[in-house]
Amino acid sequence: MCHASVWYVLGDTGVSMAYDMLARITGPRDLDALSLSELDQLAAEMRAAIVKRVDALGGHLGSNLGVVEPTIALHRVFDSPHDRIIFDTSHQCYAHKMLTGRAYGFFDEDRMDEISGFTNPEESEHDWFRCGHTSTSISLACGFAKARDILGQKHNVVAFIGDGCLSGGEAFEGLDNAATFKTNLIIVLNDNEMSIAEDQGGIYRNFAELRASGGQALGNFFSTFGFDYRYVEDGNSISDLIEAFEQVKDIDHPIVVHIRTTKGKGVAWAERNKEEAHSVKPRDASPSGETYTAITRARMLEKMAADPAIVVINAGTPGGVGITADFRAAIGDRYVDVGICEQHAVTFSAGLARGGAKPVYFVASTFLQRAYDQIVQDLALNQSPATVLVFQAGFSSIDATHLGVFDLAYTGNVPGLTCLAPTTAEQFLAMLDWAIDVSDKPVVIRVPDKVVHGGEAVFSDDAIARFEVERAGADVALVALGPTLALAGLVSDELSANYGILPTIISATTYSALDRQLLFSLETGHRLVVTLENGILYGGFGEKIARVLGRTSLRVLCYGGTKEFVDRVSIKELNQRYHLEPQALAADIAAVL
Amino acid sequence: MCHASVWYVLGDTGVSMAYDMLARITGPRDLDALSLSELDQLAAEMRAAIVKRVDALGGHLGSNLGVVEPTIALHRVFDSPHDRIIFDTSHQCYAHKMLTGRAYGFFDEDRMDEISGFTNPEESEHDWFRCGHTSTSISLACGFAKARDILGQKHNVVAFIGDGCLSGGEAFEGLDNAATFKTNLIIVLNDNEMSIAEDQGGIYRNFAELRASGGQALGNFFSTFGFDYRYVEDGNSISDLIEAFEQVKDIDHPIVVHIRTTKGKGVAWAERNKEEAHSVKPRDASPSGETYTAITRARMLEKMAADPAIVVINAGTPGGVGITADFRAAIGDRYVDVGICEQHAVTFSAGLARGGAKPVYFVASTFLQRAYDQIVQDLALNQSPATVLVFQAGFSSIDATHLGVFDLAYTGNVPGLTCLAPTTAEQFLAMLDWAIDVSDKPVVIRVPDKVVHGGEAVFSDDAIARFEVERAGADVALVALGPTLALAGLVSDELSANYGILPTIISATTYSALDRQLLFSLETGHRLVVTLENGILYGGFGEKIARVLGRTSLRVLCYGGTKEFVDRVSIKELNQRYHLEPQALAADIAAVL
Repeated sequence: MCHASVWYVLGDTGVSMAYDMLARITGPRDLDALSLSELDQLAAEMRAAIVKRVDALGGHLGSNLGVVEPTIALHRVFDSPHDRIIFDTSHQCYAHKMLTGRAYGFFDEDRMDEISGFTNPEESEHDWFRCGHTSTSISLACGFAKARDILGQKHNVVAFIGDGCLSGGEAFEGLDNAATFKTNLIIVLNDNEMSIAEDQGGIYRNFAELRASGGQALGNFFSTFGFDYRYVEDGNSISDLIEAFEQVKDIDHPIVVHIRTTKGKGVAWAERNKEEAHSVKPRDASPSGETYTAITRARMLEKMAADPAIVVINAGTPGGVGITADFRAAIGDRYVDVGICEQHAVTFSAGLARGGAKPVYFVASTFLQRAYDQIVQDLALNQSPATVLVFQAGFSSIDATHLGVFDLAYTGNVPGLTCLAPTTAEQFLAMLDWAIDVSDKPVVIRVPDKVVHGGEAVFSDDAIARFEVERAGADVALVALGPTLALAGLVSDELSANYGILPTIISATTYSALDRQLLFSLETGHRLVVTLENGILYGGFGEKIARVLGRTSLRVLCYGGTKEFVDRVSIKELNQRYHLEPQALAADIAAVL
Repeated sequence: MCHASVWYVLGDTGVSMAYDMLARITGPRDLDALSLSELDQLAAEMRAAIVKRVDALGGHLGSNLGVVEPTIALHRVFDSPHDRIIFDTSHQCYAHKMLTGRAYGFFDEDRMDEISGFTNPEESEHDWFRCGHTSTSISLACGFAKARDILGQKHNVVAFIGDGCLSGGEAFEGLDNAATFKTNLIIVLNDNEMSIAEDQGGIYRNFAELRASGGQALGNFFSTFGFDYRYVEDGNSISDLIEAFEQVKDIDHPIVVHIRTTKGKGVAWAERNKEEAHSVKPRDASPSGETYTAITRARMLEKMAADPAIVVINAGTPGGVGITADFRAAIGDRYVDVGICEQHAVTFSAGLARGGAKPVYFVASTFLQRAYDQIVQDLALNQSPATVLVFQAGFSSIDATHLGVFDLAYTGNVPGLTCLAPTTAEQFLAMLDWAIDVSDKPVVIRVPDKVVHGGEAVFSDDAIARFEVERAGADVALVALGPTLALAGLVSDELSANYGILPTIISATTYSALDRQLLFSLETGHRLVVTLENGILYGGFGEKIARVLGRTSLRVLCYGGTKEFVDRVSIKELNQRYHLEPQALAADIAAVL
C-alpha cells in the first residue's frame, strides 16, 4: 500500500492506445482463437491499459506489469472458473481482471471506479476470494484441492504467488501442508527478484541459485518439501509459459512452477525503479503537506545519532510507513527489514528489547493484526520494552482488505500493553521519546493521519491513564480519543451556537487505560458523556467508558464506526453514516438531553 | 495442553530415587566437575524427577524425557546466562529448570508448586521469556543476536526448538531472517520424529532423509536458506552432544545443529505411546465425567456418516480438543491435521468452505489467537462458511501463557463473524448442526467447559441476535452469556432470599450481536442490568451492552475478568477476585440499587 509520489512515463509502453484486441476479450476463452503474435499484441494493449488506470487512480503498477504474459498463458491453458486460479494478495490481478470481462475498468476512464484493485468474488466468478494480505494463496488452494477431492470433482487448482509473499510464514505453512497432498495442486511462483521492497531472507539466496542454474541447482527449497518442480527462465514469454502450463495441467500431484519475470516489465521507469513503481499515486495526486512519516523520520535520525541501541524494524513495507531509501541509508545496519512477516517482526522486537536494544517497529494497522498472538504473548505477557508505531490507523476510503479500524480493539484490550493515541505532533514526539527509553513495558503509538500542531508536550508514566480537560463546561462531556479532538471542538461550537450548551471537552491520548477519577468526577455537573474514536466501536475505546460509567447516573453515547467492512467508501460518507459530523452529532446530543 | 488420561509406570526408569547427584546441582557450572559417567547418573536421576513431578502435577512428560541429555550437554558447553539459551514453547524446559537451581520443583513434593511448567524470567535468570505458544524461539534468538551485535557484546545465542514447532510459520519466518545474519546464532533442532501428535508436513520428509543419510542428504531444507548444518545421530548421548556443541560454540555465523532424540526416552510406556505421553494428567486425577469433547465426537461421527462434505481440521493439537485416535481412524481422510499452524488451519478452512466442503476446525482458545488476521480476512471478510469450535475458553487455573479469556474480544468484535456461546449441551448440538450446514457465513462456537443439560434446543438464523428471557422479574436484569447462566441462577436465589429482589434472568447464547429490542425493553420495570461473562471484560460481551444501554436510564454493571494475565490461579480465587460468586455479586447489586 505504499504510494510513491513519482511520475512514470506512459509513452514508455510505445503501443497504440486503441485497445482493439483487448476490447474484444469478454472472457478467458476468447484467448483460444488468438495467434501467438496476437497474444503479444494483446499483452502490449493490456500493459498500456494498466498504465492508464494507475495514472488515473493510482495502484499497483510494477507487480501488475510484470505478470501480463503469465496471466495470458494461465488463462489460455487453464479453463477458469472451472479450473481455480487464486492470486496471492491481489497485487498482480489486473491482467486477470482484464481477461475476465473487466477490461473496461482499465481503458475506459468513465468505468474505472466500477472495479477494485483486488480480487473480489462480487465482481466476477473468476475471483475466488477477497485477498489483500499476503501469503494466503497456497492455504486457500489446499482447501480447494481437498474440497475437490472429497466431493469427487475434477479440476486444476492453481495458486499464483509472488516471491515476496513467500516470506510470510503462512505461505510456508501452506507449502508444508500442500507438499503432503497426493493430488493436483499447482503453485506458480512469480519470481521477479523483488518483494514490495527488496527481497529479504535466506530463501531468496536459493531462488538466485535456481535462476542461475536454470532450475537445476542441487539445493532446491521446494524439493526439500517433496514438491515436483519446473523452472521457466523467461516468464514473460507467452509461448514458453503456455508450453510449461500445458505440461503441468491435470497433473496428479503438487508441483511448483518457478517462473522468472521482470517487475515493471515494459515501462522503462518502472523497470528501473522497482520499489517506487510497486504501487504509485495517481498522476494528479496533490502533493502531501507535512506528514507524520517525515516528522517521525526526522526525530528518529536525531535519536539514533545519540543512542546506538535504537533499531528500526519493518516487515517488507517500508514505503507505506515512510521508511525511505535515504532514511535506510542513514541508519545503516540499525534498520532491519525482515521481509513480509509481521509475526517475526513483533517477536524479533521482543527479543531485541530483552537483549537490551531499543526496537521501534513501523507497521500499518491492517498488517499488524497478523501478529495479534505475538503482541499478546511476546510483547505484553513478557513486558518486552519495544515500541510499535501503528500507521494508517483510523477511517479511510481504502479497500475492505486494508482497513485500519480494528487495532483499537486488538491492541487496546491486551493486558500489559500501553496504547497511546496522540492528538498533536508535539504529543506524538513526546510519546515517541518516552516510549523508546521506557525499559519495563511495550508501548503502541497510533500515529494520526493528518498533522495538527499544538502546544509543547511532555509524556511520562503518570500520563498513561490520564485524560486532560481541555475546557470545562456543563451538562455534556465530550471525550475525544486522539485526533478526534478536532471534531469535539466543532461539536462544541455547534452545541453552543445552536443549543446553548457549553460542553466539557476532554482529550484522551491513551486507550489502554481509563482516567477513572476524571470520568467519575463528571457525575458532578454533567448528565451525558459522549465518546469519539476513529475505529470501530466494537471492542474499542468508548465501550470501556460506557462500562465504567454504567454504575453511575451518567448517560453515555459512543461515536465511531459500526461493525462492518467498508469498501472504498469516502471519508465524507463514513462521517455521515457514523454521525461523526458537528451538526448531526450535536443534534443527537440535544435529543438525548 | 492435551492431557491423556493414562497411567505410566514410574518403575520403568529403574533408577534410585535418592537424587544424590541432582540435589547437589545449584547451577549449570556444577556440571563442569562431573565425569561423563556421573553425568549419565545425573541424567537418570533427572528422568526420575521428571516422572515424579508429572506423576504428582501432570505436565509434559515425553518431550521433557527426550531432552535430558541435550540439556545437560548445552549447559555443560555453554555458559548460561552469559550465553543465551531459549527454549521454544517450554515443552522441553524441565531439565533446564533442574540444572538452573530448581531441581526441588521436581523431586521435592512440598516444593513442586513453586515453579511452573514453562520458562519464566521471574523464576530464574536462566529463563529469558515466558514461552507457551510454539515457533517463536528463532525470532527471539534473532533479536538477541542483533541486540548483542549493535551493543558490542560477545556471547552465544542458542534457540532450542523441537521438530513439531517448525511447522508453525513463524519458525520459518525466523529461519528465513536468521539465515541472513553474519554472526553467531545457533539453532538446535530437537528431532524426535514427533510433534505433539505425529509430525505433519513436507519438511518432515526431508528430516527423514537427513536422518537416514546421517545428515548427508543432498537435499537439505536448512542449507537451502544458506545455513551451515551439523547432524548428531545420537542426540541422547551426552558425549556426542558435548563434542558437537563444543565445535559450534563461538561460531561466527548461523548454524543448525540437528540432533536426533527419542521422545519419552527412558520410560518404556512413554517411548511406546509418544502422543499420549506428550502431556499427561496427574496420577490421582479424578476421571472426567461427561465431556464436551465426547459429545462433539459422537455428533460429528453421526453427521459425517450422513454428509461426505464435512471435514475436520486440527492444527497439531488433537488431544487437547478431543480428537482421539479412534475418531481419526473413523473419519479417515476427512480428518486433516495440518501441523501446528493455526493461520493455515483457518485459511485452509476458508478454502474448503469456498470449495463446497463443510470444514469444522477444532482449536483451543489460546491458540486460535495466532490466526486473528485470518479470522478477519479469510473467514469474516470473505464470509467463508466454516465452523470453528473453540475449546478451553473461559477462566481456568492454567499457566499465563495459555489463557482462554481473550477470544470473546478477538472473535466477538470482528464484522461478519457469528459467535455463539451455548449454555447447555442440547444448545451446543443444535448450534453445531446449524453451523455445519450454514452456507453463507462463518460461525464460531465457544464450547463450554462443563456439561450442563437443558431442554430440547433448536437453532436458526433468527437466533443469531436473540437473547432469551429465562425468568421475568423486576428491578434487576441478569444477562448471562453462555455457561454463566448457572451463576445467574444462584445470584437470583441469593437476591430473593436475602434482599427480597426477584431479578429477571436473560440467557444470551450469542456474543457477536445484541438483542437490542430485548435490552431496550428492560427500561420498563428495571433499574439495573448486570452482565456476566467468562472472559476478560475488555472488548468483551458486557461492554457492548453497556454501550448500547448508555443512552437509557438503566445502570449497567459488568462482571467478568479484569485486564490481567493470571498465572495458575485457582478458579475459586478468580471467582472471589472478580466477584463471580452469588453472595458478593448480590451484595454489589443491592448496594447499587
